[in-house]
Amino acid sequence: MSAIRHALSVKRADDFAQWYQEVISAADMAEESGVRGCMVIKPWGYGIWERIQRLMDARIKDAGVQNCYFPIFIPLGNFEREASHVEGFAKEMAVVTHHRLISDGKGGLIPDPEAKLEEPLVVRPTSETIIGDAMSRWIQSWRDLPLLTNQWANVVRWEMRTRMFLRTSEFLWQEGHTAHESREDAKAETMRALEMYRACAEEDLALPVIAGEKPENERFPGAEETWSIEAMMQDGKALQAGTSHYLGTNFAHAANIRYQDREGGQQFCHTTSWGVSTRMIGGVIMVHGDDDGLRVPPRIAPYQVVILPMLREDEGDAALLDYCATLKLGLAEQSACGEPVRVLLDSKPGKAAAKRWDWVRKGAPIIVEVGPRDMADGKVAVLRRDRLWTEQGKPDFAFRALGDFVGDACATLEAIQSGLLEQARERRDANITRGVTSVDEVAAFFAEDQRYPGWVEVQWSKPTGAALDRVVEQLKALKLTIRNVPIGAEPADGSCIFTGEPAVERIYVARAY
Amino acid sequence: MSAIRHALSVKRADDFAQWYQEVISAADMAEESGVRGCMVIKPWGYGIWERIQRLMDARIKDAGVQNCYFPIFIPLGNFEREASHVEGFAKEMAVVTHHRLISDGKGGLIPDPEAKLEEPLVVRPTSETIIGDAMSRWIQSWRDLPLLTNQWANVVRWEMRTRMFLRTSEFLWQEGHTAHESREDAKAETMRALEMYRACAEEDLALPVIAGEKPENERFPGAEETWSIEAMMQDGKALQAGTSHYLGTNFAHAANIRYQDREGGQQFCHTTSWGVSTRMIGGVIMVHGDDDGLRVPPRIAPYQVVILPMLREDEGDAALLDYCATLKLGLAEQSACGEPVRVLLDSKPGKAAAKRWDWVRKGAPIIVEVGPRDMADGKVAVLRRDRLWTEQGKPDFAFRALGDFVGDACATLEAIQSGLLEQARERRDANITRGVTSVDEVAAFFAEDQRYPGWVEVQWSKPTGAALDRVVEQLKALKLTIRNVPIGAEPADGSCIFTGEPAVERIYVARAY
Repeated sequence: MSAIRHALSVKRADDFAQWYQEVISAADMAEESGVRGCMVIKPWGYGIWERIQRLMDARIKDAGVQNCYFPIFIPLGNFEREASHVEGFAKEMAVVTHHRLISDGKGGLIPDPEAKLEEPLVVRPTSETIIGDAMSRWIQSWRDLPLLTNQWANVVRWEMRTRMFLRTSEFLWQEGHTAHESREDAKAETMRALEMYRACAEEDLALPVIAGEKPENERFPGAEETWSIEAMMQDGKALQAGTSHYLGTNFAHAANIRYQDREGGQQFCHTTSWGVSTRMIGGVIMVHGDDDGLRVPPRIAPYQVVILPMLREDEGDAALLDYCATLKLGLAEQSACGEPVRVLLDSKPGKAAAKRWDWVRKGAPIIVEVGPRDMADGKVAVLRRDRLWTEQGKPDFAFRALGDFVGDACATLEAIQSGLLEQARERRDANITRGVTSVDEVAAFFAEDQRYPGWVEVQWSKPTGAALDRVVEQLKALKLTIRNVPIGAEPADGSCIFTGEPAVERIYVARAY
Repeated sequence: MSAIRHALSVKRADDFAQWYQEVISAADMAEESGVRGCMVIKPWGYGIWERIQRLMDARIKDAGVQNCYFPIFIPLGNFEREASHVEGFAKEMAVVTHHRLISDGKGGLIPDPEAKLEEPLVVRPTSETIIGDAMSRWIQSWRDLPLLTNQWANVVRWEMRTRMFLRTSEFLWQEGHTAHESREDAKAETMRALEMYRACAEEDLALPVIAGEKPENERFPGAEETWSIEAMMQDGKALQAGTSHYLGTNFAHAANIRYQDREGGQQFCHTTSWGVSTRMIGGVIMVHGDDDGLRVPPRIAPYQVVILPMLREDEGDAALLDYCATLKLGLAEQSACGEPVRVLLDSKPGKAAAKRWDWVRKGAPIIVEVGPRDMADGKVAVLRRDRLWTEQGKPDFAFRALGDFVGDACATLEAIQSGLLEQARERRDANITRGVTSVDEVAAFFAEDQRYPGWVEVQWSKPTGAALDRVVEQLKALKLTIRNVPIGAEPADGSCIFTGEPAVERIYVARAY
């Protein structure tokens, strides 16, 4: 195995952070823009986002949620209304103060002092307050409920330390916002959205996730309950990949979202919000990437099969391209995971081997090379991205008759999809440690070898207020956080590792992005 | 005909501007947001935009253009580089000057003086300069060309007077940006994008348009050539519905976009940009709307067929809903305009007649009402939105056997699509006046009855500089503008109506949005 010459210069095991950056650059997914904290998402990275959008959007629409679009600018006053929302969000945001530039007289431009806004506008960090305004206009009676809206948008949260896809000042996301008659209905919607995220993460992105409730200290500012899906990266850290919030009537009070109930009385709505972002792409990289680059699950791969003709820049090329075009057509007529197979015939100039490694680094699920001899034999050379190497450290090409390959390409794609999920699930499950019964044990566990050995499941008494603060501080000293209280876990049967009191539930503790 | 009780309170002929606002509100497409110049796009309006996006995006991808995403913030310095671009854009833009809010000590929030940005950031009004920076990084050699990128994004241009969809401070659009080796290649791309817009406008939106070159005074700031598609609204005014720019090497010089040519020398790239926006939806309203509301062309209708069961809130409802579900399934299995038919079974509570008029105002192409008696007879009552009224002023229902209706629903949708285009084309062609040979005649023509009688085709000598300024001033006094120099017009054969010199081409003169 030591004979393998991997396609990246940095290995996961050697420097995970550096490896992550190299995957993004080697797979040509994104780059720094030169604008503080903002990235440029390049075609391969954006193509993955488009796939995630399409699949998630279908799930959102299936749930009867309707897409809208709300203003990017939120008047400052909106943030002053909901006290804990201010506290949580009114910190690092981009503030628009002027609406015109003028010449500074020296060849440069400055904000025009004459064009100062009376009320500054905030570039949305999230849209509860502006959508709350709309809901207060749209909802009169219980007949208008539930109101189920969503928007796909860019948002800005000024970040001091940024990392591509994981934490950038501007990012792309969807935000669902719903209003309901009762706590019960709103909670059901909160859980529906959470389950939708779980299903999309696992079925589409092949990311095994733990769905559960965040502890009080990690709640969205203004929420009554915050639920998350958490995925384990290959360095053992957790990534919060989506959240769903039950907001109680807090935002309804702030924005005056009221309805006439069935008895004619006035009630405040119970609202929810839920979102996933381009951060998910960071999760895909850190769960499925290997020392050769990214591996994109077929459902979210912009191209599922890439055909590389071995062109020689002679008269033979035309026939070879014809053969490849036939192959492409044959594949595109097949249906994998419910959609036509997405095939690229990459006939750009360049050596086939160099192009092969580009597509390996990008993580195209299946790469097919076709040379004149393959064509003469009616064959193709097939490389599966999830089984790249032979035991001898060579690229593991299978030479298949064209018809045979086309005939089972869809089954292969589906096998790759489920294989990636299974592999990630096994790795995650192997790296969750149970039965840890004291904070010291937790500390010793995470100190060992300076590794990140995964997550630890512990039992606790669910302290609140100052007692919870003490727990958070203890964990913070160990660079750890509580990820969530998993749904469907075994009931607690021991003592709280923090307070010594009888435990009421199990939680996951981990390092996190 | 006077017996018709139309579904809107204002008629096009009585007050076109007021009618436009009423359509938007009655079709529940959008509303004012309370944030200056920004609108909220509601589900029906946004659904139309999603359809336009999907169809246009497919055309963009078919041309080999790849979607990316670039930062919303553009450093001020980027605007200082390209002189005419500054002149044209560096005026009314949203300027971010701070990145944090703090308490004002009185319960309010203010921008934190400690968090003032060293260099203000502009919320993108368009992205030539920031994408130019990326191109300068991405392009080294002629092998990297052409570079074909596009993004779907929100942009902001501070507007003093706004009108929903037509002119808002924030709007949604796509912007294509491409770089090429030669003027010839870049011009070919400029024309390809223009033709793509023409085809999408006519085939998808059923908007007949005139494609042509804008006069020098109407060029995009920094462009060598600006081309547009222009549509005629029902008040005779023109709407510029899309533009495509050949930018020469101006932006390449500003952002240093250079490549090594085939001989090893360094050359500046020739670039293009092209865009269409949510403004197109304003065009759809003003071309296809009538005194009963919007009429959405089937290809861009979020729902093409709306089924309204006449529910009685008794035990009979279940069977009726079953019958309607069968109908829905039968329709969804059909394919119109190359996609499965989009059907809504609207079983929300409410009287069927009230719901019918809601869908008439929204402009769903086909409305199907089904009552218990229809079900008993195996029939449905079909209303075509493009043929709403009988000669007696009643809704023109056709009672059809269910199977017959399902069998020809796709043909009906395609007939509605082409009928809307044909109707708009005939109206436009009937309202273009040719043979006008003096400015006085033009003035008299547009003064007549205070009507907006359409467009006038005149011949001109294509003056430039100060001579063109005089033409623009003359027209401005008449509230007229030059729309474009249509592609494929008859050659000029007369004198310029402005200068008296021999004419070189024909132009359209009109009032415009």
